Amino acid sequence: MQFETQHVDALMALLRWRRDVRHFTDQRVSHDDLTVLQQAMALAPSVGNCQPWRVINVVDRALREKIVVDHKAANQVAADQYDEPRREDYSALKLAALDEAPLQLAIFTECDPAQGHGLGRQSMPEAVVYSTVLAIHSLWLVARSLNLGVGWVSILDPERVERILDVQSSWHLTAYLCLGYPKFTDDTPELERVGWQERTDIVWATK
Amino acid sequence: MQFETQHVDALMALLRWRRDVRHFTDQRVSHDDLTVLQQAMALAPSVGNCQPWRVINVVDRALREKIVVDHKAANQVAADQYDEPRREDYSALKLAALDEAPLQLAIFTECDPAQGHGLGRQSMPEAVVYSTVLAIHSLWLVARSLNLGVGWVSILDPERVERILDVQSSWHLTAYLCLGYPKFTDDTPELERVGWQERTDIVWATK
Repeated sequence: MQFETQHVDALMALLRWRRDVRHFTDQRVSHDDLTVLQQAMALAPSVGNCQPWRVINVVDRALREKIVVDHKAANQVAADQYDEPRREDYSALKLAALDEAPLQLAIFTECDPAQGHGLGRQSMPEAVVYSTVLAIHSLWLVARSLNLGVGWVSILDPERVERILDVQSSWHLTAYLCLGYPKFTDDTPELERVGWQERTDIVWATK
Repeated sequence: MQFETQHVDALMALLRWRRDVRHFTDQRVSHDDLTVLQQAMALAPSVGNCQPWRVINVVDRALREKIVVDHKAANQVAADQYDEPRREDYSALKLAALDEAPLQLAIFTECDPAQGHGLGRQSMPEAVVYSTVLAIHSLWLVARSLNLGVGWVSILDPERVERILDVQSSWHLTAYLCLGYPKFTDDTPELERVGWQERTDIVWATK
């Protein structure tokens, strides 16, 4: 299988126009699109082919409300780390869309998967959770190609979320994703647009 | 920016035909392709836009030889974890291409980046290294679109690699990547083809 220039161009456009989205319309995500997202995750690389990602589609209102409460608590703790005036800047940011995102996926890692028979994770056991992150990025890019937005919420207490969703003890929360149709598209990160952090030039060294 | 069906199709084809490659030709990677790989990483998402990925292009023969020695030692330790007959199966696997890959990139994470001002990593500090993993997957997919292969080597002692490459103490090894033109293309993972681990159906739960 040989790829052509149009594949490079399509992927680079997706990378440029992928955003961490915090502003969603109320249009629901179709069952067909959800199936494509599942297929994208299933194709992700994983250490030893261990496929450690575990997904809960969170639909219950009471569970969602508990996640919102946890996010607010974690966000307050985070805000309290800053001195003024940055604390005020931080508090003005919209960092999640837990109240509005029509689709919400809690992504866990099975920390000791039977699949893969331990291959590739003796010296770097963290490769297991990295595999889940690779699957999340596969989902993220395919979502963008479907004109869906994804927002990764990391301002949560992982252990509290694990308790809220009552998962087995070997599952560790890797990400909580908000999905839906974005209110607008942009090729500039929101944190750059609002002046929090611009892109910087990461130089590669040679040794 | 609205994407169309051809973008979905292009991305899904890249996901299907992306492999963890351990068999490379000796054709070198062009400077232009290297530039595209850099651009892809630079477009990756990162928590607080902290862009924590740090890259060393390892070209020195003596350094590469030290990496090979470390891989062999880590691989022997890993093999010793298995009982027969799995141990023999493990030892027969080709798990890296450190002797042949023309381009080798050591990817580190700056664990306490100034960029991002700590945003999004109070409650889940692991989000920083996850950002590097997202950048690696961006590079991986763009490499595939350029008909390059990538092999992720996790059978290494991270601290030894950090010493070999003499990096600053705040850098932690996230991945060691082998790149080049693959000897063949395939839509089935090598570990599935050789009977180590097939793909399994990861069911999504709803709560």
